[in-house]
Amino acid sequence: MEDIQERIATSFNSQGLMATLGARLVSAADGEVQIEMPFSTQLSQQHGYVHAGAITSIVDSACGYAALTRAPLDCDVVSAEFKINFVRPAIGERFLAIGKVQTSGKLLAVCTGEVRALSAGAWKVVAIMQATIVNVRG
Amino acid sequence: MEDIQERIATSFNSQGLMATLGARLVSAADGEVQIEMPFSTQLSQQHGYVHAGAITSIVDSACGYAALTRAPLDCDVVSAEFKINFVRPAIGERFLAIGKVQTSGKLLAVCTGEVRALSAGAWKVVAIMQATIVNVRG
Amino acid sequence: MEDIQERIATSFNSQGLMATLGARLVSAADGEVQIEMPFSTQLSQQHGYVHAGAITSIVDSACGYAALTRAPLDCDVVSAEFKINFVRPAIGERFLAIGKVQTSGKLLAVCTGEVRALSAGAWKVVAIMQATIVNVRG
Amino acid sequence: MEDIQERIATSFNSQGLMATLGARLVSAADGEVQIEMPFSTQLSQQHGYVHAGAITSIVDSACGYAALTRAPLDCDVVSAEFKINFVRPAIGERFLAIGKVQTSGKLLAVCTGEVRALSAGAWKVVAIMQATIVNVRG
Repeated sequence: MEDIQERIATSFNSQGLMATLGARLVSAADGEVQIEMPFSTQLSQQHGYVHAGAITSIVDSACGYAALTRAPLDCDVVSAEFKINFVRPAIGERFLAIGKVQTSGKLLAVCTGEVRALSAGAWKVVAIMQATIVNVRG
Repeated sequence: MEDIQERIATSFNSQGLMATLGARLVSAADGEVQIEMPFSTQLSQQHGYVHAGAITSIVDSACGYAALTRAPLDCDVVSAEFKINFVRPAIGERFLAIGKVQTSGKLLAVCTGEVRALSAGAWKVVAIMQATIVNVRG
Repeated sequence: MEDIQERIATSFNSQGLMATLGARLVSAADGEVQIEMPFSTQLSQQHGYVHAGAITSIVDSACGYAALTRAPLDCDVVSAEFKINFVRPAIGERFLAIGKVQTSGKLLAVCTGEVRALSAGAWKVVAIMQATIVNVRG
Repeated sequence: MEDIQERIATSFNSQGLMATLGARLVSAADGEVQIEMPFSTQLSQQHGYVHAGAITSIVDSACGYAALTRAPLDCDVVSAEFKINFVRPAIGERFLAIGKVQTSGKLLAVCTGEVRALSAGAWKVVAIMQATIVNVRG
């Protein structure tokens, strides 16, 4: 797992979008990756909440890297597709995306993810994702 | 339609994320909205292509604003959920997101969207979306 | 909960498709409903496994009825949309669909579901669903 | 195309579920397959309309067979996942599912589908699907 953590950290740091969003890799364990993002007006939609696209971006990355912890060693991963429900307004000081592998094979992994918002001292789920990740020869 | 175009432009300009991504509202017609985004390394994923999250963000906004052109006048819109397939690597100089209303009711609209990439003089579809937008009293 | 269990049983028994598929309501608790379906060649796809459509049908009903346990008393529910991943071939003697409410509001509920197959004495997940259910005045 | 039409017809006829639902293969052209299903109370949900699961089943098969028309010759296809929106109640005398390939590669195809209902002499779209199909060595 040390190798894969380092590999994920290196890959994460090369994602320009994660830096642009102010996102930070929190943890990478076997089958589960967490990414955090503080609130910023630069991420807002028209009501001042965080835009669905920013919420989606961090949980997509979390799911992809979770899949990478189970992918064959010579593979990288890309998102084939995902679906996401926004279950509460994305209001909060910080947002934590958690991606988890549900099943993984030689070719495809299926992950579920969620994003929690920290607001007034409490974490609440604001989005849930179901994603298909494909292994590609790196 | 003039009023709704102005309303969409005002709303778009208040979305911090669209500015952060360098996105620009191209057009807002009845049931169809187009948003453009130039390539930038600030939007990249680990292979240097544009991150799925940035692609998703512009087509989510395009679908939402397309739905707004058909929403009751006293309503704003939010994304309830969407699903997106990434059908080619997001490589290109510019990206055009097109959101279209398929059906709309008092409560919900269903939209489809796509993102096209301009590369070597040709436009190719890189992502397709199917989204559910909910009308909310503004 | 007794009322809602009886209401779900009555509604389930009025679904012609559930009878056609040989499906049976197993349990209806607050926020969670289970439906079972035995294998039959009448449900098969071209390889002899159970067709994705039959798997989808029982977990769609399970999610819908789970949502109904949390819906306002004067409402019925309909599926607005869902997404389902088929993570293993649907091989088995029996299939158990479990639908769970993740969040519910006045208007919409978001549910997750899974289908497990019993094969050689072991249950394995063969499909996972994420669904949006809408409350409708009955 | 003659070979593939015959292959699809043979495969369709081996799907027990299609017979159970009363579905019929209408046409199989390059990249597009149509399947029809008459109304029956055996397909109903609790309001007497056709159950979302039956609607889903025919458009899933239509998308899968559409993908098969573009798959490598030595491959069969299975649904990896799909997402479907139900945009109107499934009321009608007959239902027509149309599956179309959007993109196809060595490994995956992405299809869109819709189901139209014939009611009072007019066809209306009742559901739209976006699906990922995977090629498997047969």
